Amino acid sequence: MTTSHTGTGAVDPAVREELARLRDSIDNIDAAVVHMLAERFKCTQQVGHLKAGHQLPPADPAREAKQIARLRALAESAKLDPAFAEKFLNFIIAEVIHHHERIAESNGNGNGNGNGNENGNGTAPASG
Amino acid sequence: MTTSHTGTGAVDPAVREELARLRDSIDNIDAAVVHMLAERFKCTQQVGHLKAGHQLPPADPAREAKQIARLRALAESAKLDPAFAEKFLNFIIAEVIHHHERIAESNGNGNGNGNGNENGNGTAPASG
Repeated sequence: MTTSHTGTGAVDPAVREELARLRDSIDNIDAAVVHMLAERFKCTQQVGHLKAGHQLPPADPAREAKQIARLRALAESAKLDPAFAEKFLNFIIAEVIHHHERIAESNGNGNGNGNGNENGNGTAPASG
Repeated sequence: MTTSHTGTGAVDPAVREELARLRDSIDNIDAAVVHMLAERFKCTQQVGHLKAGHQLPPADPAREAKQIARLRALAESAKLDPAFAEKFLNFIIAEVIHHHERIAESNGNGNGNGNGNENGNGTAPASG
């Protein structure tokens, strides 16, 4: 009647309940993050259009260095591995570059130069 | 007096202001996401300890499949690329596995088996 441990079906109900509670929190957090990221990509799209429309250079190394330093400090205070925070930013930047490449391709210039600082205002779309 | 475009220093003030506004939003979003991820890792650490303490299998493919399907659907409704949402989940899972491997190593069993479903309850810590 207690724990037989052959799988989640045969587990102490209290343990299963605790696991479900944690998974619910994980799912809530994931939903929040997905929505935040959707909003973030809306911002970087706007940055891309703005830069393209005003012949601004896509890369801004000083801005990127500041972002990395800031995220690392925030991670530290949140007890998150700062190296992970930096990796995370790079992961996002790579995606934004990918977005901009697709925009460039669909604009027919094919110039996905991949210069993706500032979270991806890298290749600015030709329109805007 | 207007836009000379040699760098952000010589840009139309209205454009610079708009760029700053977007960057502030990006920074706010990044801070929110970093804090959400810190909270998420707290949950997965607890899951790891719970599973280790109750001899539960680290992997749960059904749970993982459900998470992927759910995140893809959420992404779609938020106008985020579903493929990116899935890639993002895998990125996080990889980090949680890494956490668990470190815990396993520091517990001296070195058994970082890397089986990291459910966002990283993969290698359960030996304690708990």
